[in-house]
Amino acid sequence: MRIGVLTGGGDCPGLNAVIRAVTRAAISKGGQVFGFKDGFKGMIENRYIALDHDSVSGILIRGGTILGTTNRDNPMRFEQIVNGQKIYCDMSEVIKKNYDSLGLEALVVIGGDGTMRMSKEIAEKTGINIVGVPKTIDNDIVGTDITFGFSSAVDIAAQALDRLHSTAESHHRVMLLEVMGRDAGWIALHAGIAGGADIILIPEIPYTIEGIIKTVTDRIKRDKHFSLIIVAEGVKTPEGKAIIKDILKTDIDLVKLGGISNYLARTIENESKIECRATILGHLQRGGSPNSFDRVYCTQLGVKAVQLIEEGKFQEMVAMVNGSLTSVPLSEVKGVKLVDPEGPLVQTARQIGISFGDG
Amino acid sequence: MRIGVLTGGGDCPGLNAVIRAVTRAAISKGGQVFGFKDGFKGMIENRYIALDHDSVSGILIRGGTILGTTNRDNPMRFEQIVNGQKIYCDMSEVIKKNYDSLGLEALVVIGGDGTMRMSKEIAEKTGINIVGVPKTIDNDIVGTDITFGFSSAVDIAAQALDRLHSTAESHHRVMLLEVMGRDAGWIALHAGIAGGADIILIPEIPYTIEGIIKTVTDRIKRDKHFSLIIVAEGVKTPEGKAIIKDILKTDIDLVKLGGISNYLARTIENESKIECRATILGHLQRGGSPNSFDRVYCTQLGVKAVQLIEEGKFQEMVAMVNGSLTSVPLSEVKGVKLVDPEGPLVQTARQIGISFGDG
Amino acid sequence: MRIGVLTGGGDCPGLNAVIRAVTRAAISKGGQVFGFKDGFKGMIENRYIALDHDSVSGILIRGGTILGTTNRDNPMRFEQIVNGQKIYCDMSEVIKKNYDSLGLEALVVIGGDGTMRMSKEIAEKTGINIVGVPKTIDNDIVGTDITFGFSSAVDIAAQALDRLHSTAESHHRVMLLEVMGRDAGWIALHAGIAGGADIILIPEIPYTIEGIIKTVTDRIKRDKHFSLIIVAEGVKTPEGKAIIKDILKTDIDLVKLGGISNYLARTIENESKIECRATILGHLQRGGSPNSFDRVYCTQLGVKAVQLIEEGKFQEMVAMVNGSLTSVPLSEVKGVKLVDPEGPLVQTARQIGISFGDG
Amino acid sequence: MRIGVLTGGGDCPGLNAVIRAVTRAAISKGGQVFGFKDGFKGMIENRYIALDHDSVSGILIRGGTILGTTNRDNPMRFEQIVNGQKIYCDMSEVIKKNYDSLGLEALVVIGGDGTMRMSKEIAEKTGINIVGVPKTIDNDIVGTDITFGFSSAVDIAAQALDRLHSTAESHHRVMLLEVMGRDAGWIALHAGIAGGADIILIPEIPYTIEGIIKTVTDRIKRDKHFSLIIVAEGVKTPEGKAIIKDILKTDIDLVKLGGISNYLARTIENESKIECRATILGHLQRGGSPNSFDRVYCTQLGVKAVQLIEEGKFQEMVAMVNGSLTSVPLSEVKGVKLVDPEGPLVQTARQIGISFGDG
Repeated sequence: MRIGVLTGGGDCPGLNAVIRAVTRAAISKGGQVFGFKDGFKGMIENRYIALDHDSVSGILIRGGTILGTTNRDNPMRFEQIVNGQKIYCDMSEVIKKNYDSLGLEALVVIGGDGTMRMSKEIAEKTGINIVGVPKTIDNDIVGTDITFGFSSAVDIAAQALDRLHSTAESHHRVMLLEVMGRDAGWIALHAGIAGGADIILIPEIPYTIEGIIKTVTDRIKRDKHFSLIIVAEGVKTPEGKAIIKDILKTDIDLVKLGGISNYLARTIENESKIECRATILGHLQRGGSPNSFDRVYCTQLGVKAVQLIEEGKFQEMVAMVNGSLTSVPLSEVKGVKLVDPEGPLVQTARQIGISFGDG
Repeated sequence: MRIGVLTGGGDCPGLNAVIRAVTRAAISKGGQVFGFKDGFKGMIENRYIALDHDSVSGILIRGGTILGTTNRDNPMRFEQIVNGQKIYCDMSEVIKKNYDSLGLEALVVIGGDGTMRMSKEIAEKTGINIVGVPKTIDNDIVGTDITFGFSSAVDIAAQALDRLHSTAESHHRVMLLEVMGRDAGWIALHAGIAGGADIILIPEIPYTIEGIIKTVTDRIKRDKHFSLIIVAEGVKTPEGKAIIKDILKTDIDLVKLGGISNYLARTIENESKIECRATILGHLQRGGSPNSFDRVYCTQLGVKAVQLIEEGKFQEMVAMVNGSLTSVPLSEVKGVKLVDPEGPLVQTARQIGISFGDG
Repeated sequence: MRIGVLTGGGDCPGLNAVIRAVTRAAISKGGQVFGFKDGFKGMIENRYIALDHDSVSGILIRGGTILGTTNRDNPMRFEQIVNGQKIYCDMSEVIKKNYDSLGLEALVVIGGDGTMRMSKEIAEKTGINIVGVPKTIDNDIVGTDITFGFSSAVDIAAQALDRLHSTAESHHRVMLLEVMGRDAGWIALHAGIAGGADIILIPEIPYTIEGIIKTVTDRIKRDKHFSLIIVAEGVKTPEGKAIIKDILKTDIDLVKLGGISNYLARTIENESKIECRATILGHLQRGGSPNSFDRVYCTQLGVKAVQLIEEGKFQEMVAMVNGSLTSVPLSEVKGVKLVDPEGPLVQTARQIGISFGDG
Repeated sequence: MRIGVLTGGGDCPGLNAVIRAVTRAAISKGGQVFGFKDGFKGMIENRYIALDHDSVSGILIRGGTILGTTNRDNPMRFEQIVNGQKIYCDMSEVIKKNYDSLGLEALVVIGGDGTMRMSKEIAEKTGINIVGVPKTIDNDIVGTDITFGFSSAVDIAAQALDRLHSTAESHHRVMLLEVMGRDAGWIALHAGIAGGADIILIPEIPYTIEGIIKTVTDRIKRDKHFSLIIVAEGVKTPEGKAIIKDILKTDIDLVKLGGISNYLARTIENESKIECRATILGHLQRGGSPNSFDRVYCTQLGVKAVQLIEEGKFQEMVAMVNGSLTSVPLSEVKGVKLVDPEGPLVQTARQIGISFGDG
């Protein structure tokens, strides 16, 4: 069994734990593992290292990926400079060639939804065997109940809420914490409940400024002169405008920095005269050591990927469905898994009095 | 809706989070909540406090239980001192009386398997309505896939392994970490995988000293001059003797302190001449703030308990089955949920080369 | 002994630990302690609570201040609304009156340099007895080697660098972390060394964009395709412009959000074509539980404050000088304690190859 | 400049940080660094590695020592097997030979008081140039105000007290935490204050069982039905017996496991009928990542050691005295630095009502 492995897309706690599990499981079956550097880019450039017990020793607890990664490397539209001009080329065949030259039986691709889609396309075009492992702190990949890295990101976000709590309470302030999640509210929902947020704002549930201020002032009436708001980065303005694209077209960069949390802080403070402060958690959610759940889960995912290869089950993504490890066809991994606004966890949050800004 | 709530048995991260969720969910439905102090003991003595928003403010993140608890309070065999003599009385009727005098509709009992069994008996004897919430860091309660507190305990144990790792490596030692779990190996299994243990010893899988030493010396041959062993407290000697009951009957206390980890450290060191050190994690696993998973889970459990009461579904225990929140009859909560020695997580561990001392 | 105590200025880990120590030390000497709410504002409005053992139980480890605080309450220029108009009044005499009406012997003021200056003025104007306790995460108060809260803030900032490290390395990026410190570079300097920063930018040492890029590219030549930069919020552009005041006067708010770190990220990326990302740590540095150093130090400060009162030594600020607890006159607490660009810790950093962007 | 470096004695957070600083500082001066493996043992056996930027990359935050260490390697009494018999030889001349063969100018010895004493002797015997760096979590080395590793150990111990607090409170128990420190009470004193202990027991202050029980029962009268006790491992029984040597000579190993904390738990429980539980923190204090204070301090120590070598100042130990980095002659590093029972920190603890069991 000769296996390739690569990591694609943004950073995520647990990448190394998956690489380690794939390597150790393959070795225990007498196989060999080759790690391509920097995602598909490195596979196109045929940059790889052989992975053995020593290569993966001690990496279980380390953030990042020993293989490197890159966010921008669609191999079907790969940037090349030819005669001083940028052109975009389909490099699937180069991938196929490098796959064959190493005598690989399968390629384990650890990545997000974009990487899964590319993997499916490459597999279709070239016939190489791919097994996907769903990675993203955002937990928005269709086909699996949970992605690795998500639990660790929730930990970080909930701890940040814990920290903001004391300042909010001492200073009688509204504190906003902006967390990642792209178009989904998973991190905000889970970390909001875990961190004792009073208001959770997620893209899936429309809100109003009045709804937010009502919760804040209701709390003041109950002698709680502070409120904690967690807001997913994908939340739009109440009018449905996206901060980056719509609010300040003239200076996109600056607004990007500000995020929806700062927009909301300004708006709420203006309308309610209550002091507001926003904190954007940013890359702190992506880096660092995975928590123990993710370390166990990544180990399961990596071992399962090798097992799928052994069974000859390709063009599949390892997945957790209803508490069991299984796999789904890559062709079914499309779209975005959103929070169900009527789902059980939102209901739970509402029942303990958490507002979604729509009250 | 008038609800009583109490916490029974040993300490466990998340008790307060459940109390908070029960209280807030009941209040949001117009109900009232009364918390009995110190488990069934306090209910027998009719010691209680009314719980409102203020009582549960800020307790989400705090370890322990604001209601107090006790390990030894079987209400059907309750210790009384009469005429200077200890006698044991069935106090079910006192419980019934105090339940009625507060006009309760139901009692939420947060406890372990012992508490669940007592709850079932009391409900049968007195006809009061009970909803159980499964609490134990040991994760050994039948009827639910996971108990609250377990995930937090695994975090602590895995972090302890992380700490021991560097010392083991620098000093070329075998380091043993003894974790809780009673007769089950759940904490050791999960924390062992998460913390990069080389050997996991659990009560469910027989091992030999030779099996352990083989793994240790195989590692030395691969130039890994150290090994990390995690051992569940319920593990017996290879001959099947229980440390506390069988090894040193003449001085039970002292041996209890030592634990199986010290017994093994001595035995392995004697036979292999490799330096061994044992650490018993002890109560550090039980106390302190719950992790974010447990905070969310406890909130779900508490809200679900109130929902069951609303639906008139009594003598049930809230449970997580196949990733969904549900409930099971208290009558089915018997026996101990053990690790399946052939189950998927043990298989996963074996595939990445973790030994169970039976190799 | 009747003592008042209040907390002023921004949030800081350890405020509660000082309040606890003052209260417990005074009680142990038979004294009584009154805590004014929300800083001098609450003292002016005569809002206070009596502090006893129960009031301060469990607060040692909690962030924030149980007394509340406010950032904007110069009692000599106190905002009042008279006939619908804002006017600013000197309320020193009101403070004196409320001090006298409680029969206080002294007032312990826990605050930053601004609060110390106000305290000195109030003491001079009214003759009340004040003992100051130097509080700020920024460590920039003259007269003491270290302020409480600083060590905890450094911990948080160093842990953030640890998290960013793995992402920087995996993605071959320059990651910037912006930390607090006002006009001083203390947090950046200490956390930079503790977190393994490659470049530390502080207001006290001029830098150039070329200097930064040189370090980044020198590292790339040594096959280190990433760099970690920690930058103090008080750092100006290389041309000496302050981000908030000078760069974008037309939209101050937005630029404030961006901070110098984003300005630098954009500039370095533009000039070097190396991908850069900035994270602003913000309020996460101010909140949450103090570390063990600060807990011990705050306890020492609080006890020392009570001791000064006992000795009748007033208009003094408790201080740590050359490793010993002592006190300095409030009149000497002026100006800002900056990092010495030639001092031993900067030299230490340079000797292990850390750049200050001036190379 | 050619420098050797080695680490001796027990594990301690920050060893790697010192090695890194020595290496980077020496390289920045054009020097070369050689790391001997496993302390003086490795130097005798001439096992070493050249240290460069890559060797020390990423080790700042890692516990343990990349050089390895051993607890038992007095080079003047070095165990050899000759003709099947153990003999003890003076290997100073071998050390001198290997020092010379590498052309070293100086040897940096990172170790505890035992290692410092051996270093002085070796230097005297052989004339090689030694600079010592004081390492021990116990903080008991004469000549320096603080040793590296101590602050990190205090953090761990204080966090453990935090965890035990909630269990003690919920279960109305006395919880004892036994921490390291050998014959000194530094860790117990600092962590006890930081972790809110009610009683601190250290070898330097005699106590009685009655004194302990008085504090516990006084607290119960104030409705505090729990107490936290931190006890240094070096504390003897009230009769002055050492647990290991004196209590149970017949089964030293078992008693060693139990520690003074279990002895006290049993004694207090027997006499007071209050439930007691003991936890021995053990090796968790020694391993793992150094905190930010120790990372900065270790960097300073390592750089200072190289500076001493540059200045030709040998047979000295780097030291922190009154807040300044300096050095003291190795010949003055003798005896044990104990806690002053009348010193300022003990006084501070007493003033906030902490008992030392002597009340």
